[in-house]
Amino acid sequence: MDSPPLYRKLATHYIDAIGAGSLKPGDRLPSLRSLMRMHDISLSTALQLCRAMESEGWVEARDRSGYFVKRPRRLAIAAMEEPATHVAPDPAQYVGIHAKVSDFVARRRQHEVRIDFSTARGSPELYPGEALRAIMMRLLRQKPALLTTAAPSRSLNPLREAAARRGLRVGMTLSPDEVLTTNGCIEALNLALRAVAQPGDTVAVESPTFYGLLQVLESLGMRALEIPTSPQTGLSIEALEMALDAYDNIKAVVTVPHLQNPLGSVMPDAHKERLVALCEQHDVALIEDDTYSELLDMDTPPRAIKSWDRTGNVIHCASLHKILAPGLRLGWISAGRWHSRVEMLKYTQTRSNEELSQWAAGEYMNTGAFDRHLRRLRDHLRQQREQAADAIAAHFPSGTRLNYPPGGLQLWVELPDHLPSMTVFDLALRENIFIAPGTLFSNSSRFDHYLRLNCGWPITETIEAGLRRLGEIASECAALQRKAA
Amino acid sequence: MDSPPLYRKLATHYIDAIGAGSLKPGDRLPSLRSLMRMHDISLSTALQLCRAMESEGWVEARDRSGYFVKRPRRLAIAAMEEPATHVAPDPAQYVGIHAKVSDFVARRRQHEVRIDFSTARGSPELYPGEALRAIMMRLLRQKPALLTTAAPSRSLNPLREAAARRGLRVGMTLSPDEVLTTNGCIEALNLALRAVAQPGDTVAVESPTFYGLLQVLESLGMRALEIPTSPQTGLSIEALEMALDAYDNIKAVVTVPHLQNPLGSVMPDAHKERLVALCEQHDVALIEDDTYSELLDMDTPPRAIKSWDRTGNVIHCASLHKILAPGLRLGWISAGRWHSRVEMLKYTQTRSNEELSQWAAGEYMNTGAFDRHLRRLRDHLRQQREQAADAIAAHFPSGTRLNYPPGGLQLWVELPDHLPSMTVFDLALRENIFIAPGTLFSNSSRFDHYLRLNCGWPITETIEAGLRRLGEIASECAALQRKAA
Ligand SMILES: Cc1ncc(COP(=O)(O)O)c(C=O)c1O
Ligand SMILES: Cc1ncc(COP(=O)(O)O)c(C=O)c1O
Repeated sequence: MDSPPLYRKLATHYIDAIGAGSLKPGDRLPSLRSLMRMHDISLSTALQLCRAMESEGWVEARDRSGYFVKRPRRLAIAAMEEPATHVAPDPAQYVGIHAKVSDFVARRRQHEVRIDFSTARGSPELYPGEALRAIMMRLLRQKPALLTTAAPSRSLNPLREAAARRGLRVGMTLSPDEVLTTNGCIEALNLALRAVAQPGDTVAVESPTFYGLLQVLESLGMRALEIPTSPQTGLSIEALEMALDAYDNIKAVVTVPHLQNPLGSVMPDAHKERLVALCEQHDVALIEDDTYSELLDMDTPPRAIKSWDRTGNVIHCASLHKILAPGLRLGWISAGRWHSRVEMLKYTQTRSNEELSQWAAGEYMNTGAFDRHLRRLRDHLRQQREQAADAIAAHFPSGTRLNYPPGGLQLWVELPDHLPSMTVFDLALRENIFIAPGTLFSNSSRFDHYLRLNCGWPITETIEAGLRRLGEIASECAALQRKAA
Repeated sequence: MDSPPLYRKLATHYIDAIGAGSLKPGDRLPSLRSLMRMHDISLSTALQLCRAMESEGWVEARDRSGYFVKRPRRLAIAAMEEPATHVAPDPAQYVGIHAKVSDFVARRRQHEVRIDFSTARGSPELYPGEALRAIMMRLLRQKPALLTTAAPSRSLNPLREAAARRGLRVGMTLSPDEVLTTNGCIEALNLALRAVAQPGDTVAVESPTFYGLLQVLESLGMRALEIPTSPQTGLSIEALEMALDAYDNIKAVVTVPHLQNPLGSVMPDAHKERLVALCEQHDVALIEDDTYSELLDMDTPPRAIKSWDRTGNVIHCASLHKILAPGLRLGWISAGRWHSRVEMLKYTQTRSNEELSQWAAGEYMNTGAFDRHLRRLRDHLRQQREQAADAIAAHFPSGTRLNYPPGGLQLWVELPDHLPSMTVFDLALRENIFIAPGTLFSNSSRFDHYLRLNCGWPITETIEAGLRRLGEIASECAALQRKAA
């Protein structure tokens, strides 16, 4: 893996210092001359460093006197509170989410999209389309039989190899045979759940969680037990422990340890270790959804939960859909002791994935370009999140809270005074602005006054205006609600 | 659609005459001169006609005296008997097929494949790899964003359009919106079954049927009720009627009307019409698996079952995997009144298929090249089936029966004296020759003395030798069994 350029490493160092508070808003960055001397770098590197920090909104240049740390507006917005962990709701067979999602989709369909904040998606130009295209063209020339030959069962290919190799970075020792390619993470989750649980069984999930998972559970006839989840540290291990003691038909836990959707929380390693032990002890399968790890603002993601797995009780699911190429449907699963059962279910559900895209993605992942792309992607997303968060701080009603995550595609916003985000959704829709209302992310009504905003698109003037308009709509609703009260 | 060249039409005419018996083995074809006069064709067309018939094994040239109808050896082999239709076995939750298939796969794994008669697959050179590759290269140049953009939900593309348009040829009037792309026919079957039935429900299937379907049912916790099926006309409508009267928890019927796997049977139109009415009357969903229609030896396949559907009770499933490109995993489903439910299940199971391969396949299907390819593919397969059947007639033990199908990739062979095909399988395996034993195609033991032979590969000397060796192995087993009796 290549390391980032020098100026980038230094920028990270100074950004960390800002994050840690040792450089405060208004402080002056060391002068170019001091930077050159302190870090033994050239003038051009020192300039690159300052310009990068400026373009990312960390510092601003003041005429002749140097670069000063900016006061990010988003710092003015309060963080969310921790959830109560002593209440785990009843497991109810969740048969409402499809209706909710269908209703949401149906309403959207009546309007043309002008600005879409509702999906969890990066904009196409953030992905290495050109490089992937070149690899695919070469593969088509060199291996035309990929189109006309059915994949031999169990064939290895560069994707499975790359997935296994990259697993090593996060503590997983897997051979390529233990990695099965799937149609995105969503198929991996389906297979994992079908392997470990039956219709009628209960599955513990984070609350809030991404509605795709609730839909999968509903379609499989399984019950979702929502476990309180911290905006900072993710799934509450205490609450899960209480739930495992209280209910005896919990067959699996599904968790997104890094950049949970929608919270953006990141589970500390100590929690991961406890979680693995707890699930083993209760003989409950642990399903790790690793869709977003590579979008964390760090060069190597933290250890995967599966890296603590000694008994094959953890099923690891991942995907390239959000990090490499949204036009490909590639994910994978390492199913531990359920490997054979998952392999069989995958065969009966969709057979092998097409080989061409697996080869193309795998070969790309085998080059240094992949890590360079990820670094660039994270940089863009960070800037976009920051600009979006600034706009929220500037335009949303006072009392709005925000969970500002250390990476990823989205922001999770809490409206003040329990303002229903469905109202904001409906009003915004009339102006062709789409958001994801919080009600989609839970079986309960706990998140009805939250909303999720996608930051996958560059913050153009249109997008900026859309955020402002959203803030105005929310403020108008808030004012009306206060008047009515 | 282009029509075939003139000589081909005339060849079909004479082959039909041989089939109908108006030209018998030993008869002389009209002389070149008579052919020219009778059909008003040039000498070169008349020669093309005779050479085509010769190379396909219908006639042989005798020095100076012209072309004579050959006695196909395969005519010496007896056809299979019709099944008794008054016995429908008990519906049993079928939990054995995975074990059988796994055992079969495990045994195969211990050996290197030398000759594989066990799959249902065409050889790569039978498919238009070059043309597909050219289209894909062009698409990558013209629409690179296909790689980096997630398919918008409900987006139309050339595949959905081509599938809808080709449906018209077989009597189905569908708009592209009613056609959902799937990962092969297998995903279509999964979605159809999940839409219309629940775990524990019973599904009526043909007996024998392809083991993939039995695996899907087992993995979904559904029960397979095997309905007697004619090697000629397919699913017995009488037997189904009796079963529908006898059992009240049958939720669906799955049928392969054209070139059923493994039988190769073709359901007459009158049966299709009765079947549609019967299922409607009993409020049972009818799932049509149309994987093989385009491999029938005719230019336009017969009407689809769905063409009789007036109430949305028929779900039509199809695939390009065997007819266009085994390296692509493209199929589709038109789910009638279950359309929304299937759309939702598809979304929760795998999301949309990748767009690039859909565009490539769809654009190819929109050209005349597709029908020309299909015609060539059918011609090759017919020759291969004929040569394989001749080899079986020559080398298999006397009393062997064969269902010689009017198209497709495979032959279904009945061994004499209830000789277990698993024994032949095991002995052949030791010589690295793979077959599919009949036991895989049913929950019962009724087909334990059958085997399925793939004819998707050109009959090279190696393959010919493999067929001879298989025949010898079967003959040795038969002799031993007779001696023991
Ligand atoms: C947490 C999480 N898991 C899984 C998925 C589905 O991923 P894929 O597109 O790879 O199927 C998503 C997509 O939104 C997600 O947010
Ligand atoms: C009758 C039948 N249906 C469906 C399938 C699966 O088709 P696909 O490869 O398109 O998923 C097969 C493959 O063997 C088959 O024979």
